[in-house]
This record gives sequence, structure tokens and C-alpha cells, in this order.
Amino acid sequence: MKGIRQLAEHLNISIGTVSRALNGKPDVNQETRRRVLAAAEELGYVANQSGRSLRQGETKVIGLMIESSKETVENADNFFLGVTSGLQSVFARHKLDLLMLPCPSDEDPHEYLKRMVARRIVDAMIISDTQRVDRRIDFLSRAKIPFVALGRSLSASNFPWIDLDFEGVADHAVERLIALGHRRIAITAPSSEANLGYLFIDSYRRALERHDILFDPSLVIRIRSSEQGGYQAAHELLLLEERPTAVILIYELMAIGLYRRLMESGVMPGRDLAVIGFRDAPRARFLQPSLSCFRISLYDLGVALGRMLLATMPAYREFYPGDGRNIIWPLELMPGESDAFDVGAMV
Amino acid sequence: MKGIRQLAEHLNISIGTVSRALNGKPDVNQETRRRVLAAAEELGYVANQSGRSLRQGETKVIGLMIESSKETVENADNFFLGVTSGLQSVFARHKLDLLMLPCPSDEDPHEYLKRMVARRIVDAMIISDTQRVDRRIDFLSRAKIPFVALGRSLSASNFPWIDLDFEGVADHAVERLIALGHRRIAITAPSSEANLGYLFIDSYRRALERHDILFDPSLVIRIRSSEQGGYQAAHELLLLEERPTAVILIYELMAIGLYRRLMESGVMPGRDLAVIGFRDAPRARFLQPSLSCFRISLYDLGVALGRMLLATMPAYREFYPGDGRNIIWPLELMPGESDAFDVGAMV
Repeated sequence: MKGIRQLAEHLNISIGTVSRALNGKPDVNQETRRRVLAAAEELGYVANQSGRSLRQGETKVIGLMIESSKETVENADNFFLGVTSGLQSVFARHKLDLLMLPCPSDEDPHEYLKRMVARRIVDAMIISDTQRVDRRIDFLSRAKIPFVALGRSLSASNFPWIDLDFEGVADHAVERLIALGHRRIAITAPSSEANLGYLFIDSYRRALERHDILFDPSLVIRIRSSEQGGYQAAHELLLLEERPTAVILIYELMAIGLYRRLMESGVMPGRDLAVIGFRDAPRARFLQPSLSCFRISLYDLGVALGRMLLATMPAYREFYPGDGRNIIWPLELMPGESDAFDVGAMV
Repeated sequence: MKGIRQLAEHLNISIGTVSRALNGKPDVNQETRRRVLAAAEELGYVANQSGRSLRQGETKVIGLMIESSKETVENADNFFLGVTSGLQSVFARHKLDLLMLPCPSDEDPHEYLKRMVARRIVDAMIISDTQRVDRRIDFLSRAKIPFVALGRSLSASNFPWIDLDFEGVADHAVERLIALGHRRIAITAPSSEANLGYLFIDSYRRALERHDILFDPSLVIRIRSSEQGGYQAAHELLLLEERPTAVILIYELMAIGLYRRLMESGVMPGRDLAVIGFRDAPRARFLQPSLSCFRISLYDLGVALGRMLLATMPAYREFYPGDGRNIIWPLELMPGESDAFDVGAMV
């Protein structure tokens, strides 16, 4: 890869002239300009944009850290690619580029983040998959690196985040099922320490209590967030002595495996068991009976994350005066066939 | 974010002493070491690894360029995350990190790549989604940036690549269907200029010709590679005057939409129409009847890509003496129920 110095040496003209020719300045004669551009093309000249950036302490690059766990990989999760488009639409206005930083599954996310920051690749970070206690938040705060988190955490009382409304989804789902006559409602949660699992279960529990339904720990099924997890969840449901009449899923693709396992046992979703999925995903749209689930625009979520991040950065703050506040992102119920029956008729 | 200079100023001791304390050198007294480490923690000191790298012209970072097209996003494609783990396992041995560079859907991939190279973020690139004519390959070759492509292209006669065996899959699928008595076999191909579509159709055509079956262009269905594309493909199949008895898919998730549309019309995959999918994906594993498709280890593919890339880089070449050659990656048929019937009995 050639820089301006090599170009100048190759052409035997001054660096200043090469620079003026490359930048289209008028004080370079036609023939010289032609020679410089031809040589640049031939030698594979690449303008060095990093010099300027380093002097300014800016790379013009934002990092999005994702966990490339086995679970994510198997899930074929498009979640982050969906968010990416929205982020890029905001960053493009400021000629900022977005890189994705996939943390290997066998590496501690905190150590990984420290290394990536030490590499001085990015000006700011977006982190996701926040844990209940998440040392990355302390680290970024202390190191004064602008960041925004997709997900809450107990680790700091005050940091920029947007999170999906897990409480709202669990609450809405329980209310809906109770209105349909259900009293024995199962719920799934991740087997990890992800913060969202705690929010989801807490809200489910509170909603049950509001209706004087006793919380039964055996109805909380901790499982991997994947199709296979859904299959396993159905398996566990079917083994329960007193089988629930409804189940609420925390992850959209679980529905695929859950349906499969139920049908293998002759249990029909939407007739023998009410199912409410989580996010409306393209995959789940092809399920039969159609899945009751919640709609969210990942693009809009990406836009909001991007705006919130820039609102924390001195160079861009002025453009985003109203974007600094934390957001609990609402999801809208899309009723399907999977819970469209009255349990009274069934029992 | 604080560097070593700020630390030294804060503590009012020399940069040299701070450096020796941070690096655990023995000639620093206990108390000073303790003070330095405490201040480093408190002020969020981050070692600058970029200085050394820039002097050496090395960033120790490898870029994986992916296209974040609307299609990819809707697909929830886990393909690249799967490959990522394998790549990282190779790169970790050399303390190299992998970044994913998502090219926005509204940007020309060639221009995007040029900009990212100008940012001097990465030492080497992995590109994917190669087009028939792909200017990125010329650009990287000319700029002498080490790279490997996941996918062939007509753009250069000699560059490092690994590609899936699209010809082998199409050939195997046609032979299998003909052995089961099929003569009227449809095939899907991407609506884009992706090189793989051409390879797939050419091989299908040659296999038919081997058996004296006339190539019928109406049986080649050009469609988006997604669930929705599969739904549309089934729709078009059902409209054909003389309906085919079998269909070969070029993308695994198409099967989900295809099944749905067929079933809506009372056409049962594996009984009324033989279906052979492409890659064995977790999603497709839950289809009923089970899909005949082809197995591939994305992890192993990532390992091979990583080795091939390092084999082109002077600093690592010696470790990978046998990894320089292009590979057509084989896929292994996994027979399912979706084509398990004899068409003779049907007609």
C-alpha cells in the first residue's frame, strides 16, 4: 500500500505537488495532474486518513461490541444487523463509520473491551448484552470513553442506556392471558446472568400477584435462548405434573423449537396451549398457527442509540440536544392465533 | 481516557518511573508501584497500543467485510457469526483481533472498502459476497493489502479465495432427483449479480444435459434469498402450467417460506413436491417434513479462511506453509424426508 511519499519518489516530483494534484488544486498543470492520478491508480495509492485523526485523538470510528457466543451463532440472530442500519444512518451524517467488535465466546467481555480500547481503534463504544453486574460500564466511565449501552445494569446508577421494555412485555402478556381465563402461566428466561431475564421474571411475578395468583417457581423455565432452547422448554412443560395452559417466551426463535416439540406430542399451540412469543421476527412469521408477539423496529432502535451516543460526545452534542435521556423502548403487541382461545372452554 | 503522561503528571513522578511500575519492573519501590497502580485504576489509564503498531505499519487487526443489506438483515443470517469463531481461533494464536466491517446497503462496496482501507484500521481484509466482476479484488491487489475472499469472481485470475462448492451441490441435487424419477426439476437463484448464482445454474444445466433433459428457463426462479423469497418461489412454482415435481433451493431459509406457501395450497413437501434445501441451518432443522440439505461446518470454514489469509502475510507465512491454495469447500448431503418419495408412484 503506497502513501504520498512513495508516489512522489516514483514520479520524481515534490510531495507538495503530488498533494496538490491529488486534491485537485488549480496550480498544477494538466499533464502533471494526469501523471499523478495515473500513478496513484497504478501503485494503489491510499490516502492516509489516520494521521489527521490521531493528531486530533479521533478515529471517526464507533465500535459496536457484540458477543459471538455459541448461542448467538446458532441463533442466526439478525438483531444486531438490524440495529446496525439505524446506527449507520445517524453516523453517516457525521462521516463516522461503525465497526462491529465480536467478543469471542471464550474471552471475558471486560478484558476484551479493555484490549479493544487499548488498540485506540474507536472514538466511542456501544455495548450490548449487559449483565446484572457489568464491569465494562465502570471501565468505560472511568476511562472517559463515550458509550451507550443497549440494556440496563445494576453496575452504575447513571449511564446512557436504551433497553427494551421487558417488564412491559411480560406484564402485557400476563394480563392478556389472565383475561382469556388462564391462571397457570409458564414463562421462559435465559440461563445466563443477563439483566433482562431478571426484569422479565420480576414483572411476570408482580402481574400474577396483582391477580392473586401464587408465583410457582416450577413454571419459570430457564433455558438457552435458541430454537433448541424452545424445544427443551416445551419438553419440560410437558413433563410438569400440572401442565400450564399458557407459556410466555423471552426470545422469538424459541417459538420454532417449542412448536415442533409440542406438535410431536400432539399438543397444538393456540388450541391446547397458549403461546406468546417475544419479538416479531421474520422467521417466526411463517409459523402456523401464527404467533402472538411484539413488534419493534430495529432500525428505529439503532437510530435512537446512535443519537444518544452522539449526544454524549462533545463534538456532536449540539446536534442532539434532546437525546441524552435513557429510554425504555416500547414494544407493540401483534395478536396472532397462538393464544386465540378461551381457556374456560378448554378446561 | 488517560495515558501515561497524564498519570505521571497527576502523581508528580517521571514518566519512566510510571512506565516501569506499570510494567512490573523490579527497580521501583513497593509504595510507588502501589500509588501508580491505584492512580491508573482511578483515572482509567489505558495503555496505548496503537503507537507501536503505527510505527510498524501494523494494527494487529483483521477486517471482515460484510454487506448489511436489507436482505441479510431480514434473513437473520448467522453465516458470518459462524465463520467468525473459526477465524478468531486462528487469529488469537498471533494476538490478532477480528473486526467486522458492515458495508451499509446504500453504499457501493468498492467505495466503502477504499474508505476503510484509508482509515488504516486493519492489516488485512476478508471480503465476502463476491460479485461476477468485483473491483474490490483489483483494488486490494494493487494496494498490496493482504486479503482473502469468501467466494470466487471473474475479476482476477489469481487471488486467494475459498468458495462453497455450489456446483457440487447443484450437481448432487439434480443427480439425486433424477435417480428418484424426476425429470421436471426447478431451481432457485439469487436475483443479484452474486457469482454463486451463476455457478449454481451452470452446474444444474450441465447435470440436466448429461441426462438429455432439456433446460427450461421457466424453471429457473430468480428470487431474493430469504424466507419471503422462498414463499414467492413457491407461489411462482404453483402458477407454472406444467408444474415441476421437484425444486432445488440455493438458500437454506427459503425452505421456511416455501413450505408455508405450498401447505397453504395443500401441496405437501416430500409427497407432492420434492424439495432439496441448501445449507443445514438450525432454523431449517425444525421443518416438518425434515429438509434434505447439505452440511457444512462454518467454524472449520472460518479456520481455513484465517489460515489462508495468514499464509499470504509475510509476518505469519512461515506458520502456514500449506495453506496458500484456493479451496472449493465440499458440502455433505443430509437426506431428509422432503424428497423421500419416488416420483414414478406420483405421476
